[in-house]
Amino acid sequence: MFITLDGVDGGGKSTQIKLLVDWLAARGLKVTICRDPGSTPLGERVRDILLHGGPELPIDRRAEMLLYMAARAQLVEQIIRPALAAGEVVVSDRFLLANVVYQAHAGGLDPAEVWQIGAAAIAGISPDCTLLLDVDSATADARMQRAHDRMEQQGADFRRRLRAGFLLEAERDPKRIHVIDANRSVDEVHVAIREIVEPLL
Amino acid sequence: MFITLDGVDGGGKSTQIKLLVDWLAARGLKVTICRDPGSTPLGERVRDILLHGGPELPIDRRAEMLLYMAARAQLVEQIIRPALAAGEVVVSDRFLLANVVYQAHAGGLDPAEVWQIGAAAIAGISPDCTLLLDVDSATADARMQRAHDRMEQQGADFRRRLRAGFLLEAERDPKRIHVIDANRSVDEVHVAIREIVEPLL
Repeated sequence: MFITLDGVDGGGKSTQIKLLVDWLAARGLKVTICRDPGSTPLGERVRDILLHGGPELPIDRRAEMLLYMAARAQLVEQIIRPALAAGEVVVSDRFLLANVVYQAHAGGLDPAEVWQIGAAAIAGISPDCTLLLDVDSATADARMQRAHDRMEQQGADFRRRLRAGFLLEAERDPKRIHVIDANRSVDEVHVAIREIVEPLL
Repeated sequence: MFITLDGVDGGGKSTQIKLLVDWLAARGLKVTICRDPGSTPLGERVRDILLHGGPELPIDRRAEMLLYMAARAQLVEQIIRPALAAGEVVVSDRFLLANVVYQAHAGGLDPAEVWQIGAAAIAGISPDCTLLLDVDSATADARMQRAHDRMEQQGADFRRRLRAGFLLEAERDPKRIHVIDANRSVDEVHVAIREIVEPLL
């Protein structure tokens, strides 16, 4: 069972992942948590380049997309595939969908091309369920408690395209991608997530 | 005019690139030299991860392939495409072919898949001419004057597959990939390279 959480920043992913993982663990399930990009030495090196590089480290959109793919390929082989093989539940903070939305729908690359390269990067490991935390921009802005990273600094229009891109992908794959209204309270969102995940367990 | 040099290490690429570039410059051509991976801040960061990481930084074969692709996408957009647009000759120490040979023919990935991802990474910028410096393993070993990097440490069998992979790709694309017997002297190899490049100028 492989669950991913995604959506624009400020949607409450971190909080909801913690609540979801606690709930899964309380049901006696063994859970592996990870973040994409990250969670491996290579992934964290790449994450640092992607999110904290400045003007002295220009990154073209295609290079950016491929760096995310490299980090993800490592995450799949080093962490996700072994955990799934051991019968664990894996919960990932973002996955391939974010790459498609950030670099293609919002960033200008071809979504079909990014999905295709993604298929090669993840080599058969796709989420069983993606929880898309959807918030309007006012809520997202109000909830952001840290400085914008390099991805988020691309302006209000970029962030609008992000939200539209996530919703479009959810429309295309409604059995797997569940849109959750995350403008509601933490508890309400957690209950909505449980209602989606419980029948899948 | 975009020229790449490739082949197993120990084939004399560095020396031949220097001679080729001097010869092109003496003919009044403006030349941009680069190396793949490398030549951009991002590319050099990725190169360092790829070639000098140790056991504390495990890199899966797919992640490795995608890191090379990311470095190359940046190299294309930041250096090669602008130089070609300005009418310069670009000479690159390695390019996509090496990725196909190292990670697929020798490394176990599917060559067609690596070519396909490569096409997305280079976005239309392919070499007009690839000079493949082919040496037997005894010559290559004798010429290596530095310690093996991470790629080269994969053993004699890996290096045999590299050579076979390069020759197979050359057979498939003989108009673009020119096999040069690099067991000969530096001068003989340089003359062979000039004979290939001159009619293309």
